[in-house]
Amino acid sequence: MTKTRTEAFSDGVFAVAITLLIFNVTVPKVQEGQLHQALLDSWPLYATYAVSFLTIGIIWVNHHALFGYVSEVTRPLLFLNLVFLMTVAFIPFPTALLGTYISMPANSHWAAAAYSVTMTLMAVSIGAMWIYLVTHPHLFKQDVDPAYARAATPRFVAGTLVYAATTIVAIVNAYICLVVYALLALFYVFDQLSQAQPRTSAEEREIAR
Amino acid sequence: MTKTRTEAFSDGVFAVAITLLIFNVTVPKVQEGQLHQALLDSWPLYATYAVSFLTIGIIWVNHHALFGYVSEVTRPLLFLNLVFLMTVAFIPFPTALLGTYISMPANSHWAAAAYSVTMTLMAVSIGAMWIYLVTHPHLFKQDVDPAYARAATPRFVAGTLVYAATTIVAIVNAYICLVVYALLALFYVFDQLSQAQPRTSAEEREIAR
Amino acid sequence: MTKTRTEAFSDGVFAVAITLLIFNVTVPKVQEGQLHQALLDSWPLYATYAVSFLTIGIIWVNHHALFGYVSEVTRPLLFLNLVFLMTVAFIPFPTALLGTYISMPANSHWAAAAYSVTMTLMAVSIGAMWIYLVTHPHLFKQDVDPAYARAATPRFVAGTLVYAATTIVAIVNAYICLVVYALLALFYVFDQLSQAQPRTSAEEREIAR
Amino acid sequence: MTKTRTEAFSDGVFAVAITLLIFNVTVPKVQEGQLHQALLDSWPLYATYAVSFLTIGIIWVNHHALFGYVSEVTRPLLFLNLVFLMTVAFIPFPTALLGTYISMPANSHWAAAAYSVTMTLMAVSIGAMWIYLVTHPHLFKQDVDPAYARAATPRFVAGTLVYAATTIVAIVNAYICLVVYALLALFYVFDQLSQAQPRTSAEEREIAR
Repeated sequence: MTKTRTEAFSDGVFAVAITLLIFNVTVPKVQEGQLHQALLDSWPLYATYAVSFLTIGIIWVNHHALFGYVSEVTRPLLFLNLVFLMTVAFIPFPTALLGTYISMPANSHWAAAAYSVTMTLMAVSIGAMWIYLVTHPHLFKQDVDPAYARAATPRFVAGTLVYAATTIVAIVNAYICLVVYALLALFYVFDQLSQAQPRTSAEEREIAR
Repeated sequence: MTKTRTEAFSDGVFAVAITLLIFNVTVPKVQEGQLHQALLDSWPLYATYAVSFLTIGIIWVNHHALFGYVSEVTRPLLFLNLVFLMTVAFIPFPTALLGTYISMPANSHWAAAAYSVTMTLMAVSIGAMWIYLVTHPHLFKQDVDPAYARAATPRFVAGTLVYAATTIVAIVNAYICLVVYALLALFYVFDQLSQAQPRTSAEEREIAR
Repeated sequence: MTKTRTEAFSDGVFAVAITLLIFNVTVPKVQEGQLHQALLDSWPLYATYAVSFLTIGIIWVNHHALFGYVSEVTRPLLFLNLVFLMTVAFIPFPTALLGTYISMPANSHWAAAAYSVTMTLMAVSIGAMWIYLVTHPHLFKQDVDPAYARAATPRFVAGTLVYAATTIVAIVNAYICLVVYALLALFYVFDQLSQAQPRTSAEEREIAR
Repeated sequence: MTKTRTEAFSDGVFAVAITLLIFNVTVPKVQEGQLHQALLDSWPLYATYAVSFLTIGIIWVNHHALFGYVSEVTRPLLFLNLVFLMTVAFIPFPTALLGTYISMPANSHWAAAAYSVTMTLMAVSIGAMWIYLVTHPHLFKQDVDPAYARAATPRFVAGTLVYAATTIVAIVNAYICLVVYALLALFYVFDQLSQAQPRTSAEEREIAR
């Protein structure tokens, strides 16, 4: 029951946060005949919308996968999940910053840095959830191999380091930073895809042994 | 489990996106005695609210119907669904554009074109989900006839072409375009209604044979 | 499945619409030392927030009760439900109108009238759902007595007439109108309370016979 | 069914209210080169976001725990829950007030007082739900000891008094008040954590006797 409601609450936060991103795509206030140009000039708003939408979507898939391993939700896990959701629900803010200021050179660095710091905190907090689970293996479902789970920990650390590294990219150039965020989202999508094995085929392999 | 959470997450995005449409219906800032006229002048905001609400509602019904055929959600399907939801959550933006600029002739064409392009992308992405399913028929539920499913593909293509065609209408006249969107929403409602057969009566026909 | 997802989607729209009401309670922009007075002057925003929150909550309870009678959701019912949700999701707009303009005499009548018209449309659309159900009694759960259900129809008609009558009150005085909305919400709460019988005790009475 | 839908609706309100907090963290409108300073100056917005996010999260955990005791939802409980949700959905407003006015001494007291009053009303309304349950013990699940439940009542009263006491702190200093809110959120987290016992170990103790 607790696990179901925690997942439902988390899904609610994800669904609201991802849909609120559209508020950053504001209607330009222009005179008659100027909407065409204004819509073209707003491309950073569309680009940041798409990148953050995909990124939150990927995070949702990962969160979903993580809870797929869990049999029971304890209070510390509830609290870590709350901190994690706090970073996810924060993403619309740096998204708006980047969409608004990417074309002002000096401001753009700080906007991109805010984005990178938010993503790093998000990666740290989902990593903390994973480390808590690995150090409390009785919370895993029975069919989860704790050794296999521990072996996944470096992946969470790597993700955190990659997002932290984008802070340096932010100092160099905000446009490059946006491209890196987009590539990271796509990389995680396809990385997930290549790893994903239908559970049934895994069971078949079990049976085949 | 994955399928249930994907549907719940999608329903959340639909519910938030459809309810956020009301933010486009802004409170007019007027002097004492001018609210009556301001409320009448705001009719494009009400009209675009109603059309987009019905349209998102119909898309939800179609999404719901599509997932009704699916037995298992794979990572590629999750990703295609995410891209699809990105287009649905985008709809409040062109809705606001059209409501704001429909009475400025030059701007209105671009506002309507933005609406048409968004709907076309939405139609393309739900079509992509369907084509993925048809080419991976093992993901269908056992009682789904793959040949029957393949036969529905032209309907998705037709929907995409119709929405693409509204882009041309947008170039002609934005008011006509809004009427076409309304008619399309109503057409899909009644098309859905005429096709819909209670599952139980379908089962009864099976038994009757 | 269809019914579960329809209820979940409806609950999502209700939850978003009711929570969005807080956006009408805007932070006053004031100089140092003037917040106290500005917070007191904002009382119409709190009052309209509370009245609309209670009202949407009561509508949710009624919607919930209505679906409690239903065994199967058909496409026409889906469509009627969509139109009904369109009126519910609209409520934040007249709420904001009333909160903003209640203290400007001439504007306040139109704001209150907009509120009354929205509520009337809401009452008409939930009434339409009920009449559809009563004329398609095979959609009721097996333990629902169609004659008993038909007998409830005048209650839906009465509710519609009451909300329509508040339009006349709006023409007289917007403050009185707000009080009437509050009383209606409370009346429905307590009316619901007096009628509500725990299902178990109903079963016990059955057994006792 | 009623209980499930009430919890789902409540979770929806919680998820929307907690995610809407990000709207208080507004994008500063600055000239080129001034974003760095503006982002630093916005720290009260981040601090109030974090405190209110944690606070709503803790309230969600408590609401969740309360409903974990309940076997059946009656109409009075539905109504009390609605009033409770009205206070939770109100939290974004005083959060925005405090974030906006904490650095203006005279205004900050009233902003902090608004926050304290909102939290007090929230504590009163969840306390009212608990007292209703304790005085209607047949609504508890069968494995709940009514005497044990009654013994928890002073905790709800204490929470209300603590929040009421922060109103006095608000009069003294709004910064201190914010720290107190943060400490209260953390205290409740760890208090919850220390009390929480996996249900299974409770069962084991039962068996061990």
